[in-house]
This record gives sequence, structure tokens and C-alpha cells, in this order.
Amino acid sequence: MPSAGGPVVRIPGMSSETTVPVRRVTPEGASGEDDRLAVEEPMEIRVAFGPEGARSARSLSVTMRTPGHDFELAVGFLFTEGILARTDEVRDVAFCGPPAPGQDHANIVRVDLAEGVEVDLGKLQRHFFTSSSCGICGKASLDALHVHGLRATDPARPRVRAEVVHRLPEILRAGQPVFDRTGGLHAAALVDSEGGLLALREDVGRHNAVDKLIGRRFLDGEADLADHVMVVSGRTSFEILQKALVASVPMIVAIGAPSSLAVELADKFGMTLVGFASDRRFNVYTGRHRIVEGSC
Amino acid sequence: MPSAGGPVVRIPGMSSETTVPVRRVTPEGASGEDDRLAVEEPMEIRVAFGPEGARSARSLSVTMRTPGHDFELAVGFLFTEGILARTDEVRDVAFCGPPAPGQDHANIVRVDLAEGVEVDLGKLQRHFFTSSSCGICGKASLDALHVHGLRATDPARPRVRAEVVHRLPEILRAGQPVFDRTGGLHAAALVDSEGGLLALREDVGRHNAVDKLIGRRFLDGEADLADHVMVVSGRTSFEILQKALVASVPMIVAIGAPSSLAVELADKFGMTLVGFASDRRFNVYTGRHRIVEGSC
Repeated sequence: MPSAGGPVVRIPGMSSETTVPVRRVTPEGASGEDDRLAVEEPMEIRVAFGPEGARSARSLSVTMRTPGHDFELAVGFLFTEGILARTDEVRDVAFCGPPAPGQDHANIVRVDLAEGVEVDLGKLQRHFFTSSSCGICGKASLDALHVHGLRATDPARPRVRAEVVHRLPEILRAGQPVFDRTGGLHAAALVDSEGGLLALREDVGRHNAVDKLIGRRFLDGEADLADHVMVVSGRTSFEILQKALVASVPMIVAIGAPSSLAVELADKFGMTLVGFASDRRFNVYTGRHRIVEGSC
Repeated sequence: MPSAGGPVVRIPGMSSETTVPVRRVTPEGASGEDDRLAVEEPMEIRVAFGPEGARSARSLSVTMRTPGHDFELAVGFLFTEGILARTDEVRDVAFCGPPAPGQDHANIVRVDLAEGVEVDLGKLQRHFFTSSSCGICGKASLDALHVHGLRATDPARPRVRAEVVHRLPEILRAGQPVFDRTGGLHAAALVDSEGGLLALREDVGRHNAVDKLIGRRFLDGEADLADHVMVVSGRTSFEILQKALVASVPMIVAIGAPSSLAVELADKFGMTLVGFASDRRFNVYTGRHRIVEGSC
């Protein structure tokens, strides 16, 4: 089969990016060059639970992700989807199965739950309650979050100066090493109210970047992020806001546009949602009381 | 609960976009304005099948999508996920349930299959075969496509001049009315080898935009797109390439970067994959024989 060049060449030890030959074309001419790509590989999340001697393991999800921070992704996913609530519910996290090609470990992550932890697998479908008034609709999806115990964020914190919000896109960009080389990754970062970078994660899937970020804090036993701001590289949707809400993140700053349902969710749960952030402007969709305008 | 303004206001008859009040902040000052958002709402896809008098209906998927072209989305999803193969397998497509708020129809689409059509619901998990060599990995995902009968695209067609590829981003942009107003939508378009626009669809989810586009052709009985080029607004992933491959699309031109697995899939099935397309440059990752360089 004809192609631009050879097969994808994996870089050992650099499993989140890879190099391929490309034909680079411009109106003035064309040439063969090398290009760096973000790696995309499936990852399966399994949970093991039940009493000692009678443990069951169950596959919960397969997601396409960029390898790296896989334990954080697995645990972050289980937390933001409502399966896990506290760090001490996790007994162990491990890879299982043979290593995947070009990687030093498998693409299957097994999360062992502590004895006595009950798993409600039905929660994986929880966004999609139907209501008698609309069948299935955005409002029913928002109501479902309430039903599962999610509460409004604390309106008193944090307070963030507008000048800090203007700087967040550059702070995110500066912390994205793989994006710089590949142009192919979403990022999510956690910053404090002065814009200090606490953590940043990248992934081909924006929901995965958020799960990795929140999973890191969860593994550290710091799942309550009520004083922090989450910065995301792309657009904001219901799913991104819902994951942030589970971790009590009160403020989201996005480089891109929000969807209607992202704004409705933020409004309903008292979150601050900013879109189109840059050094020249930003839009505040909800919760503007957390943002201190002006230069003083 | 404090917020930037009031609730989201739905525009009757304009269910793919909506208007919200925002606080627009710049270093020079801030003001209250209106902003247009892309609507995001859940949609459920159901299939009804079986012999007359003993029909069963089954819910297959709930996806967050932008309302509009919902039948195309439902049928396109069933086709690109391997549940449907031919237009005559569909007997009827209809909304079911009460209208969703702000819309004139429900968020549930029921696809009635013709009698005798067998539904293989297991195909919805087909990307994620495990192999004995890697457990679950990108290679196993690619092999799974072969197992399900997908074949390489015809290397002889189409032939597309480089000058046409340079123009495709502007052709896509010009055909995106909702993006222009909201900044919040992905787009997928089908063009001929001269860049003539055949169809364009927008959605908050890029996979949905592709399903709507392919679903339109499927409903028209033109599911074989072997002479066409698909143009997409964002990055390319395994999922986007897989959906294009099912419809025999031989060439994908993206504004953004591809993932490693998108390139591997394109290479394995003889597809032409272009990334970072603009009027000044583009990168050809695979299948460069379809692109005619130079000005003659």
C-alpha cells in the first residue's frame, strides 16, 4: 500500500509521543520531514472488589488515551464518574497483562478496592436519567447530578483578580511540553487563586486530561479542590463541568467556548465559568462574584 | 445563587444555538453583553427490530449533541459503528417521547429496522478486541476493523491537486454558520476532488459531526464515498478515521494534528491523511499518491 513514508516509529521511553515521516507541502514546494505525534492507545479500566477469597474483577471502561499518568487516569475516572468517593477506598492500583508494543507496561489498569467498599456500577449511566416532563434532556441530566448528591460550590472562595485570569492561557501553554512538539493534545491544569501552577496533564482526549489532573489529587488524598481554578485548553461541555463539580472545583477558565449545557450546569451549581480566555479578553458566563475586576 | 446574568434563553426554532448574557472583560474595562452559544443536549438512539407482532426496541446509545440533523446522526452512528450496512435495512426513523424544553421534538430517535435485519449489538464494542500479544492495544484495535470486514480504500481515486487542499480550510470555514456565531462547534464536510462542497454538518462533538455527515449520504442511499474527501475542523483520532473508513472515504483533510493511531489506521487501510491544513501549508501523513503536487 503506498504511503507518505514508513510505519510509525515508537520512541522507547517516550510513550506519549512518537515520530513519523511526513510530506510537508507549501505553495512554494514540498519536502520530506519528520513530525512528532501525540500517541493514542486504548486503555481498559478494571475494578476488583468483594471480600477476601471471593474477589471479583469487572471491566468498566475502555478509553482512547495518551499513555502516561495511567493510574491517575483510572482513579480520576472512577472518582469523577461517582464510583469512588475517598482515597482510602483504593487498596492498590496496578497494570495487568503483557506490555503493549513500544511501552514498558500493559494498557490495562486494575484498581483494587478496599474490602467493604460497595461498587455501584449503575452510576456510570447516571447522567442520563429520564424525567417525566422531557424524556431525556439537559435539565434531566442536571437533575441527575443533584440526585447523586452533588452540591453547589462554596460561593465565598476563591477570589481571583482579572489580571490573573488574563495570564492563565500563557501559564497553561508554557506547561504543555508535548503539545509544543505535536500540536495534538488537550491540557487541563490546576492553579491557585494567584495563578500558581499546581499540576498539569495532557491527553488526546480532553476528558482524560481532566481525569488525570483530578486523579493525581485524589491519589494524594486531596480530592477537595474548593480553593482552586481549573484551566482547560479547549471548549467546555457538560462532561468537563460535571467532572470538575465532583471534585468541588469552583472555577473553570477555558481557552475556547462553552456549550449551553456547560453554562447551565455552572449556573445551577454556583460555579464560575470563563470562556475565550486570552491576555486581551475573557467572557464570564456565570459566577462573576469570584472575579475581582480592575487593577487594585 | 450569584451568576453573571440570568438563565440560558432558548431561541425558539433555533435549537442549535442560544443566547446568554456574559460579562466581557478586557484589560481596559468590562461590560455586559449577549453571547451566542452552541446548544448541547443529550440524545438517545433506539433501534426497533424483529418480526411483525414481536418487535423489540433497545436503547443503544446516549450522546451529548447539538440538536439538528438528529435522524442523520442516529442513522450515521448506526452505520459507522457497524450496526447497519445498507439504506434498505431502515424502515422508518422517528422522534419518540415528549418534546424537550425549547425544542419542537423529543431527544429520543427511534430507528425502525426492516423485517429480517439482524442486529449485532456486540459490534458496539468491536474496537476493543484483545489479542494474545498485547492484551488491549492500538494494533489489536486496528486488527478488529479487519475482522469486521473493513477493507483498504481504492488507491486509484480520487486525485486531488495540492492547490485544492490549500483551499479546503476556507471552504469549511465559509460553510460553518453556527461556528461563526458561537465559536463552539466542530465541523465535518464532504467535498469532491475539485473542492466542491457537497455537505457540511456541525456539532459540539466532532464524532457527531462526522456521523451526521455520513448519515445524510446513507439516508440518500449513497453510503460509498470513495471519490470524496472529508474535511474536519479539529484533530483526527482513531474514532474519526474508523468512521470515515466504514463509509469508504479515502482521504481526510484536517485543520489540526492527527494522533499516532489515526496515522496507523490510515496507513493500514490505504487512506490519505492530511493534517495542519491551511492556505500556507499542509502535512501529508499517509497516502500521498492521491495528491498532485505542483501547479500543472
